[in-house]
Amino acid sequence: MEDNKIRFECDYTEGAHPRIMEALMKTNMEQTIGYGVDAHCEQAREYIKRHCGRSDIDIHFLVGGTQANMTVIASALRPYQGVISAESGHINVHETGAVESTGHKVLALPSSDGKITAMQVFDLYTAHINDDSSEHMVQPAMVYISNPTENGTLYTKDELAALNSVCRRCGLTLFMDGARLGYGLMSEANDLTLGDIAELCDVFYIGGTKVGALFGEAVVIVNKKLKKDFRYYIKQNGAMLAKGRLLGIQFEELFRDNLYFEISKNADRLALMIRKAFEEKGIKMAYDSYTNQQFPILSHEQAVKLACRYSFTMNESELKKAPSMTRFCTSWATTQENVNKLIQDIKAL
Amino acid sequence: MEDNKIRFECDYTEGAHPRIMEALMKTNMEQTIGYGVDAHCEQAREYIKRHCGRSDIDIHFLVGGTQANMTVIASALRPYQGVISAESGHINVHETGAVESTGHKVLALPSSDGKITAMQVFDLYTAHINDDSSEHMVQPAMVYISNPTENGTLYTKDELAALNSVCRRCGLTLFMDGARLGYGLMSEANDLTLGDIAELCDVFYIGGTKVGALFGEAVVIVNKKLKKDFRYYIKQNGAMLAKGRLLGIQFEELFRDNLYFEISKNADRLALMIRKAFEEKGIKMAYDSYTNQQFPILSHEQAVKLACRYSFTMNESELKKAPSMTRFCTSWATTQENVNKLIQDIKAL
Amino acid sequence: MEDNKIRFECDYTEGAHPRIMEALMKTNMEQTIGYGVDAHCEQAREYIKRHCGRSDIDIHFLVGGTQANMTVIASALRPYQGVISAESGHINVHETGAVESTGHKVLALPSSDGKITAMQVFDLYTAHINDDSSEHMVQPAMVYISNPTENGTLYTKDELAALNSVCRRCGLTLFMDGARLGYGLMSEANDLTLGDIAELCDVFYIGGTKVGALFGEAVVIVNKKLKKDFRYYIKQNGAMLAKGRLLGIQFEELFRDNLYFEISKNADRLALMIRKAFEEKGIKMAYDSYTNQQFPILSHEQAVKLACRYSFTMNESELKKAPSMTRFCTSWATTQENVNKLIQDIKAL
Amino acid sequence: MEDNKIRFECDYTEGAHPRIMEALMKTNMEQTIGYGVDAHCEQAREYIKRHCGRSDIDIHFLVGGTQANMTVIASALRPYQGVISAESGHINVHETGAVESTGHKVLALPSSDGKITAMQVFDLYTAHINDDSSEHMVQPAMVYISNPTENGTLYTKDELAALNSVCRRCGLTLFMDGARLGYGLMSEANDLTLGDIAELCDVFYIGGTKVGALFGEAVVIVNKKLKKDFRYYIKQNGAMLAKGRLLGIQFEELFRDNLYFEISKNADRLALMIRKAFEEKGIKMAYDSYTNQQFPILSHEQAVKLACRYSFTMNESELKKAPSMTRFCTSWATTQENVNKLIQDIKAL
Repeated sequence: MEDNKIRFECDYTEGAHPRIMEALMKTNMEQTIGYGVDAHCEQAREYIKRHCGRSDIDIHFLVGGTQANMTVIASALRPYQGVISAESGHINVHETGAVESTGHKVLALPSSDGKITAMQVFDLYTAHINDDSSEHMVQPAMVYISNPTENGTLYTKDELAALNSVCRRCGLTLFMDGARLGYGLMSEANDLTLGDIAELCDVFYIGGTKVGALFGEAVVIVNKKLKKDFRYYIKQNGAMLAKGRLLGIQFEELFRDNLYFEISKNADRLALMIRKAFEEKGIKMAYDSYTNQQFPILSHEQAVKLACRYSFTMNESELKKAPSMTRFCTSWATTQENVNKLIQDIKAL
Repeated sequence: MEDNKIRFECDYTEGAHPRIMEALMKTNMEQTIGYGVDAHCEQAREYIKRHCGRSDIDIHFLVGGTQANMTVIASALRPYQGVISAESGHINVHETGAVESTGHKVLALPSSDGKITAMQVFDLYTAHINDDSSEHMVQPAMVYISNPTENGTLYTKDELAALNSVCRRCGLTLFMDGARLGYGLMSEANDLTLGDIAELCDVFYIGGTKVGALFGEAVVIVNKKLKKDFRYYIKQNGAMLAKGRLLGIQFEELFRDNLYFEISKNADRLALMIRKAFEEKGIKMAYDSYTNQQFPILSHEQAVKLACRYSFTMNESELKKAPSMTRFCTSWATTQENVNKLIQDIKAL
Repeated sequence: MEDNKIRFECDYTEGAHPRIMEALMKTNMEQTIGYGVDAHCEQAREYIKRHCGRSDIDIHFLVGGTQANMTVIASALRPYQGVISAESGHINVHETGAVESTGHKVLALPSSDGKITAMQVFDLYTAHINDDSSEHMVQPAMVYISNPTENGTLYTKDELAALNSVCRRCGLTLFMDGARLGYGLMSEANDLTLGDIAELCDVFYIGGTKVGALFGEAVVIVNKKLKKDFRYYIKQNGAMLAKGRLLGIQFEELFRDNLYFEISKNADRLALMIRKAFEEKGIKMAYDSYTNQQFPILSHEQAVKLACRYSFTMNESELKKAPSMTRFCTSWATTQENVNKLIQDIKAL
Repeated sequence: MEDNKIRFECDYTEGAHPRIMEALMKTNMEQTIGYGVDAHCEQAREYIKRHCGRSDIDIHFLVGGTQANMTVIASALRPYQGVISAESGHINVHETGAVESTGHKVLALPSSDGKITAMQVFDLYTAHINDDSSEHMVQPAMVYISNPTENGTLYTKDELAALNSVCRRCGLTLFMDGARLGYGLMSEANDLTLGDIAELCDVFYIGGTKVGALFGEAVVIVNKKLKKDFRYYIKQNGAMLAKGRLLGIQFEELFRDNLYFEISKNADRLALMIRKAFEEKGIKMAYDSYTNQQFPILSHEQAVKLACRYSFTMNESELKKAPSMTRFCTSWATTQENVNKLIQDIKAL
């Protein structure tokens, strides 16, 4: 199963940023209480609040993304309510029905780039609510977006404001999955700040697993209605880490200064170098991504050549039929050296 | 919330055993595939199989105990089936209804010490199955035991064999929660080996969170019927760690040699020193525990005195009414020095 | 499976009261809209409101008791919340885990007669809520009582007021399962009115299946918070009858005048005649019931003798060991003639 | 809410066929045991088996269609498995997420007429199963089809055989929702028999609610694997009628001779008269239906005119924008006289 290739297949192939490992070592024999109410978690919360520019938010640390998604969604919906998502949304495709396992329908909207629009949301909402027999259909109650999306694309501030506006109007909760948020915030194509996101979303999370941490996502709850009893949901969904301080220590390090942002910026820079190399070779990109995931459309021959030295995401049976989308990811851990090697091999295609 | 007391309140107040931290440091920049199918996980599985003395078992690494319990139980039951547990069982009391959240009833049996008997299981089973209208009641389909129990007590080999026998007879799956398994296996009162457990249980887990690891539980599936598609359950329950190798690396270290057993043994030894100190003072123990948890019945005055320097589990409002059960835990991380201090203060009560 | 015995085993062995059958015949070819918003349902709601003495209540008609219980409970609880019930409560024993299947734990309280007390509720509540780690336990949020209970016993007005009071204090919803409510209201031991129940409960239902209807339970929602979107819950739980008017027509008939009460009264009268016959024979009753269910403790010999001509509930394997509880029910359909026969045979025991 | 229009909006606007009402009257005071194991249910099962031409099938009577769908699907799937359906399938659109409430994702396929093809099923299956990380996606395990579909269209024997074949190959359960099965079987466009359906499906149901009964669906289980413990699912889903004989009595009447088929045939005949009237007026049909539902595309003006005297399904806001699909249904209860009136008014448009 393992090989010695240079890995670009995802953004979680290494451990954690060295500063995080150091902090874990240094604090290892400290005695703390469990379950995320220790001093490290408290400190990490303070740092994140400072970066968000507001203190009226609740922050909870969960181990992983599927956990974060299912816990947040379960906490916001009543049993007969559903969550609107792009068809390609992580919750709709790659979480083995975790949302449905908590009883909720994912109401999927078509999307060519991973994003959904305020108008799509409004149309779906009115189709479900405007007649006498609404109770025969799932009631839309939440909008789930990922930013960056699964396709590397980004919501602009205007687009997010429009989603916010339709959500206010229709009584929907707006939830942003930020598993790769750092890579989004530091993209050259981005015009959103953490503060904007806290302003426009009811709840979102700041991904650690894919951005420098061993694991961990920081769920930020802005809307007061969602704050009550959230720790019950964490526990019930098996997402309450006994040694909660492990999450606190990691997010302390990421947000004590600008580490989270600096490592994200570097990954984006390397990803765009890869993109440029593909494009200079005349290879088209499936999505217009300015973040750490790039989606070149390769021929079978090209893919096979690169696959000798590099691991990346591809669908071999699709590739045999026609040139198909592949995925190359950089991360906080990607080295310039490995990117240079890849670029040279792209040039040699 | 935090203080500077010496902590005996639970067995997860520190990070991980130094050897584990070292291994995590050393492997940090390795690139591996995700989700628990990397070489470290494979190696850890091999080590555990060797310790169990058999290779026909499936091993999966999950982050925590509630996750492990809910995932195993969900995988074994059909919707109308329930799981038999001691009333004091962790799944019945301290998991915020995680089992019920997957749709299953916990069928609770009374227990004075945390253990249940084969006869109790048989009686409950026949009460649910023996008439025409069985389908009006939840169908018992699994027996959940914890070993050591939440009260520090242990199943003997004979007792486990009897449970195994009644489970075979009634078609029940036997599941052992081994969150503290190391402390059980190394207890002077224990006559079970890992091999016995694999022989007598359909599925069990070897706890890491409370026994030396940062986090992690190794679920061991013996019964072939439970093996199929178990990874789907892990993923759906939000229990599939992206950087799965973190679990592999930790269990590699714990089971490469006898680390898991040595650190457990030491914790048991220290716990029994504490027990002896209490008993010499004429203080009764609520449960006859030979493992790392001790349950002295303290007066309010005694508890208050010890609480000045030590944290331990107690119920203040109960203590005000009458002498009540408290809990002192040791762990792999407990030092002889701290235990000596505690013993001196017990003597001075 | 069938025999020609006179049936006393339950209160749903016949069809419906002749007046109901007549009404169904008369309206059969009327065309109405579906799903319970037709004129018959509206009319039935008006009648029930009149009998409750208030108009600020919502009334929904569901087909059966398990449906009513699971739908009401699902509508009132958040995922991490549970419902308090007597151990012998129908939802805890005889609904195949329907409540758990919607994700909620039943928090069972011991009971010798089927009733629970305000003090028991308060103690359970404080045990779950009074410390720092409440989120590790299911949060109690509802109290479920049945009246009459499964043992034929009744709550007095004082007892219900005490439950109401503890529920207000602890923020719990009070729910009365009235599957046999008519037999309770007309019992000589009863001091509650429909108006009292509406005053003291947040939600309750008036059973039709066991009291004269072919099927159907009228859920009465008093607490405003529970009213919102209740029809979604009905539909999602498969409890929305397409030809909803069938329920409306039946409850119209039962509550147009006093039919519901008259037939209940007669059943109670006949049950007490049976009780008296047993007692005069020196046979003890397991519960002190003044409603339509009677629970004589019979020897195996006595049970076998009566079982030649009558069907009633008994546990043959228990009876072989020792004299055991049996159950004889009357209903709106029970005839004086059949009761007389039974009494004669009791006398002859 | 009610009016005096002639109702064509659905096929459940009246009570039951007079023969059924008569049978309910005649048996009303019989004493039977509950829950569907009485002699009437047994007799009805025999009749249905005869009509299916086989005796190795299990038959269960449930009250309604949503119940039947959710109970059958819950019984056949493991938690991580999903059910494939046309996007327009009843379970995907009009059951308030009842399937998701039991934890299962509906995997929706696009469809222009309500039907799905074997090739679509195969493609979806392979997309979910063909790679290393299948466990990140819901596992397809069942195919749900309705016949007639929600659009009045029918599967041919060849199409059903192809679905059967792909299901065998991929290990999928094939389930047919026959809420309107009678209208399908008697359609001039149909080439399927009850025997064919039992041969080609693993499980299906014969709808009563929309075809002559007050309520009730007869679930027919052919595949042995699905038979075990099905009554537990019925009970848990609140679908076990206490006076189960009510369902038996109705299906006895429908299947004692050919009543079910005769009344269906008449409804189809009347529906095609309506269709012809629309077509002669140059009005297009949205779907090519030869069953009891017809879907003329009306202008706003046409719809408004007909809506003065008739109720039918329409979407007023859509109609204001452009000519839109409406729905007219006939049923076992539709009279020639009312159809004649409608036809005259269509002619006068």
